[in-house]
Amino acid sequence: MKFISIVMGSMSDYDIVSEAAKLLEKFDVKYELIISSAHRSPERTHEYIKTAEAKGAKVFIAAAGMAAHLAGAIAANTTKPVIGIPMSGSALNGMDALYSTVQMPSGMPVATLAIGKAGAINAAYLAMQILALNDDTLAQKLLNDRESKKEALRADSAKVEVIL
Amino acid sequence: MKFISIVMGSMSDYDIVSEAAKLLEKFDVKYELIISSAHRSPERTHEYIKTAEAKGAKVFIAAAGMAAHLAGAIAANTTKPVIGIPMSGSALNGMDALYSTVQMPSGMPVATLAIGKAGAINAAYLAMQILALNDDTLAQKLLNDRESKKEALRADSAKVEVIL
Amino acid sequence: MKFISIVMGSMSDYDIVSEAAKLLEKFDVKYELIISSAHRSPERTHEYIKTAEAKGAKVFIAAAGMAAHLAGAIAANTTKPVIGIPMSGSALNGMDALYSTVQMPSGMPVATLAIGKAGAINAAYLAMQILALNDDTLAQKLLNDRESKKEALRADSAKVEVIL
Amino acid sequence: MKFISIVMGSMSDYDIVSEAAKLLEKFDVKYELIISSAHRSPERTHEYIKTAEAKGAKVFIAAAGMAAHLAGAIAANTTKPVIGIPMSGSALNGMDALYSTVQMPSGMPVATLAIGKAGAINAAYLAMQILALNDDTLAQKLLNDRESKKEALRADSAKVEVIL
Amino acid sequence: MKFISIVMGSMSDYDIVSEAAKLLEKFDVKYELIISSAHRSPERTHEYIKTAEAKGAKVFIAAAGMAAHLAGAIAANTTKPVIGIPMSGSALNGMDALYSTVQMPSGMPVATLAIGKAGAINAAYLAMQILALNDDTLAQKLLNDRESKKEALRADSAKVEVIL
Amino acid sequence: MKFISIVMGSMSDYDIVSEAAKLLEKFDVKYELIISSAHRSPERTHEYIKTAEAKGAKVFIAAAGMAAHLAGAIAANTTKPVIGIPMSGSALNGMDALYSTVQMPSGMPVATLAIGKAGAINAAYLAMQILALNDDTLAQKLLNDRESKKEALRADSAKVEVIL
Amino acid sequence: MKFISIVMGSMSDYDIVSEAAKLLEKFDVKYELIISSAHRSPERTHEYIKTAEAKGAKVFIAAAGMAAHLAGAIAANTTKPVIGIPMSGSALNGMDALYSTVQMPSGMPVATLAIGKAGAINAAYLAMQILALNDDTLAQKLLNDRESKKEALRADSAKVEVIL
Amino acid sequence: MKFISIVMGSMSDYDIVSEAAKLLEKFDVKYELIISSAHRSPERTHEYIKTAEAKGAKVFIAAAGMAAHLAGAIAANTTKPVIGIPMSGSALNGMDALYSTVQMPSGMPVATLAIGKAGAINAAYLAMQILALNDDTLAQKLLNDRESKKEALRADSAKVEVIL
Repeated sequence: MKFISIVMGSMSDYDIVSEAAKLLEKFDVKYELIISSAHRSPERTHEYIKTAEAKGAKVFIAAAGMAAHLAGAIAANTTKPVIGIPMSGSALNGMDALYSTVQMPSGMPVATLAIGKAGAINAAYLAMQILALNDDTLAQKLLNDRESKKEALRADSAKVEVIL
Repeated sequence: MKFISIVMGSMSDYDIVSEAAKLLEKFDVKYELIISSAHRSPERTHEYIKTAEAKGAKVFIAAAGMAAHLAGAIAANTTKPVIGIPMSGSALNGMDALYSTVQMPSGMPVATLAIGKAGAINAAYLAMQILALNDDTLAQKLLNDRESKKEALRADSAKVEVIL
Repeated sequence: MKFISIVMGSMSDYDIVSEAAKLLEKFDVKYELIISSAHRSPERTHEYIKTAEAKGAKVFIAAAGMAAHLAGAIAANTTKPVIGIPMSGSALNGMDALYSTVQMPSGMPVATLAIGKAGAINAAYLAMQILALNDDTLAQKLLNDRESKKEALRADSAKVEVIL
Repeated sequence: MKFISIVMGSMSDYDIVSEAAKLLEKFDVKYELIISSAHRSPERTHEYIKTAEAKGAKVFIAAAGMAAHLAGAIAANTTKPVIGIPMSGSALNGMDALYSTVQMPSGMPVATLAIGKAGAINAAYLAMQILALNDDTLAQKLLNDRESKKEALRADSAKVEVIL
Repeated sequence: MKFISIVMGSMSDYDIVSEAAKLLEKFDVKYELIISSAHRSPERTHEYIKTAEAKGAKVFIAAAGMAAHLAGAIAANTTKPVIGIPMSGSALNGMDALYSTVQMPSGMPVATLAIGKAGAINAAYLAMQILALNDDTLAQKLLNDRESKKEALRADSAKVEVIL
Repeated sequence: MKFISIVMGSMSDYDIVSEAAKLLEKFDVKYELIISSAHRSPERTHEYIKTAEAKGAKVFIAAAGMAAHLAGAIAANTTKPVIGIPMSGSALNGMDALYSTVQMPSGMPVATLAIGKAGAINAAYLAMQILALNDDTLAQKLLNDRESKKEALRADSAKVEVIL
Repeated sequence: MKFISIVMGSMSDYDIVSEAAKLLEKFDVKYELIISSAHRSPERTHEYIKTAEAKGAKVFIAAAGMAAHLAGAIAANTTKPVIGIPMSGSALNGMDALYSTVQMPSGMPVATLAIGKAGAINAAYLAMQILALNDDTLAQKLLNDRESKKEALRADSAKVEVIL
Repeated sequence: MKFISIVMGSMSDYDIVSEAAKLLEKFDVKYELIISSAHRSPERTHEYIKTAEAKGAKVFIAAAGMAAHLAGAIAANTTKPVIGIPMSGSALNGMDALYSTVQMPSGMPVATLAIGKAGAINAAYLAMQILALNDDTLAQKLLNDRESKKEALRADSAKVEVIL
């Protein structure tokens, strides 16, 4: 079994992070999703990572806000790729979460994406791009998705275009 | 042939980005490395990506400073995973490159790492973690590397530790 | 045929960017307007620039948010003046778009204006100032507009002025 | 007579701003260059702009640091295109000059470029792109310059390239 | 005649800046108030400063947002004390106005206060503190005001205090 | 008598700071709470600190916004631990209060917590952690609280978990 | 006796703050200068302010870095005008000192100037502008100084000017 | 046995963090000091905390740079007070470490101090203030230290004071 593992630090992250889950479903990619915190439940986080990795988790996606340590805490416990989504919602609008996620020290990468919803959606895309390296069907779906996005953009443009 | 492709935006990035190349060599991972700019040589960048992908590039690493568009320009032309290294060196100390690399819109992920040298080293690690999903030898090397890092840290600590 | 070409990265930019279009209409300056993205539709963007330039585009205006690469991508493909409007709307309130637009490397200028609506309006003014270098009628209209702005400001002041 | 007018706020800006002047000379573009401050010599600045415009100044380039008002002060007194170079050197590394230059209100555009040296060089390029709209020789020189930059980049790459 | 002169850059600043005016009225301090912009009406601003100074303006208060040059433009034309209020309302929440107002170069001080309403109120207080150096009645009123503020704070505290 | 002393700079801080008070009540920890400002009522602040310390205040919690000097002013007048809560609400969203609170010079520590509500709640926790060093009952309550938080997180997760 | 009072928070501020003192000497303006800290010596600061005010201090200048509370602490104890110089030198390059100085709450103005040396020099100018409201000799000296600055700028320009 | 436990994330932190250790020695306060990372050696960190707490650690001091998770990782595993020192040295000059340390979520306080050396020294002071709540000798030493600091400041001032 191959799957993507999604961990978020608190229930308040669910509405945005579930966008990643929906996208994986749309592409028929298996995933797990739990709430576990680097700070409030460190053992649970640690155990989950070990169990998930043993069961077949290939990529971890972690979403957290403020002093966002979750992605780093996962990266410290696996050599599988770890993707970080900095969540907004603090007084600093997610700049704290961005710095806490992206500025990881040498040897402990966290693949960091945009703050908030765009980051959640891109976490799913990046995870699928990684799986697609060994899954031609998924690779083709990603290429098709790109084409459909170009079409959608052309359709949007057609509504407002002014061409001389 | 499977390899990592490293692209940097200018010769001034070489000293730092070559740290990523050295690390890949240490782990016996094949790579290509060229200088090509999203702005100064867009066709060259475009052609290189297509050629590299056809030859077996599995992951792209892009390093650029200031309004760092290189990783995004590569991401726009492939569905392979793209890793971005925001380079320092501007008046804004790389904060411009960080925002230009990480804040990609929905559907176009760039896996962003820390500004500068730590980012370059982690780009190599992340690329290897991705390849290691289908390369048990590499996966084992990454695990061994983690252990050796723990040892190095313990050795460092021993030099200064004060334990009651 | 001489005209201004306006490109925006997504439909969500339309409400603000159309302010630039309205202003050009008010001054009887011809323009084209399309939606095309540096990331989602790079070939479309590239082809449009080449076609528009051949048809008579004298100045390009590009509006994009987040890791705003659109203006830079246009600048990389033309030596006509390129004007960038950093769009707000991200967690970083457009600071990401500002840095991604203004911090262009040597040899690739993007004439950057204020974040959001003021930037959109000024993009139209700057484009007209450029065209007016060879269009005395337009130059005179711009001078008249300045005078009418002074009058409007005097009228505003008159409503609240306290003079001893 | 057509020329570019370069104004800088203080002698300390000269080393960097003279890069713009050298570039204009290389392309045989006429220019004037003076030191005049929005704050220390407002009348001189005002008179110079009027005189220069009457003599044939087509584009103004203004360089200033800290609370950089020079470009805005020029923009307030002409409808010719005004290009701003935010200078570094303050405790805030030029972020103050960037915001003071780029965040102009509606109706008063300043075409803002990168902080410091890249901005100075691009100011010359942008000014020439504007003049080239009515100068085919200059337009061709700018195209040739782009090609030579691509060659230089290829030559740089050749020194370090690793191709499998 | 001695008075305070208040200048604001646009009608949109009126609601907040009028707080300063109300405070001056409460302390029976004479003031003038006009709208005039450093950019949209530079001559008007210049002429007003000269006229106001001749009539007895002792302190100038200037309020502006974005690339806030108004206080600096006044400071450049008088050696009377100039007080700056950075206005919020831009995408950068007034950080642009703050830097544009406070980072004045050597020899051209602008006494800068907090962004927005607190700054407007403090502009009136600072102007009165300056006038009070030669007005014992006003000086006494300012001392009384301080005492009444202490009382108000004690009254507020009494509503919620918990003392063991 | 041992107690925690909570001081806030203005009534507008009450809604958030009272969260700290509620938490102390929940844990049966005694506290005092007053409004007193470093700027508007410096003597009152000074006298309160001296009185409170004499009565048994073991830890001071100070909440203030903008140029938040209250915690520092208390720290300057006691060698008891002082905890600072930077309050949001300014144009700078509490970044001003954060820097004003945390960047204390050598010899004058203020134990700074997160901006706003999370900081208020954590101020109570940190104060209790300090008291608990000599209060085994309180120490046990804090451990129990941690366990209940883990349970709450598990319960949250159970509502949305997807496990393969 | 009328004089300016200069207070700095630590010996490390002396080199820059003494620029203000030198300028006052050049203009024959009396001043006092001491080191006293809002945090390390609050009573000394308090006593000094009261004594200085009684002796004739008309304006206070305060220089401090990091969580710079000194100017605010003085403002809390006098209704004389207080001028703040935010000192650089911290990891945040003086941005902490700037926010801690300028973002004062309603009713407690600190006239804030630029970070570091320009701020120190402008503190002296602003203090003299205030005194000059009742000192025609000093007022004339300030006007002469402006003229000499214009001359110096013209002389600087003459060294590098290029006029067609 | 009662002692302070100091943990730093890497050898590169030693020069600055050892300032805290020296200060504890000067006050005859027992401490332990080790290098252990939240990311490179999470188990070691976890085990050390448990062992240290069992042996008598009353307060933990954690120093780390970049995405500084060490203090948070310790806080997640103890209910003893945890003090965080954000280390400078990254491209972001420690702003990343500051946000990663201070913006902890509800229930997990980290007592955060200034970036770099001042923070290291204050970590020792804050830890001693906490211990001194139950150690009258130490409490007296802290009071004496305050007095000696006041003397040192007076002595500094005496070297440069200008009193009329």
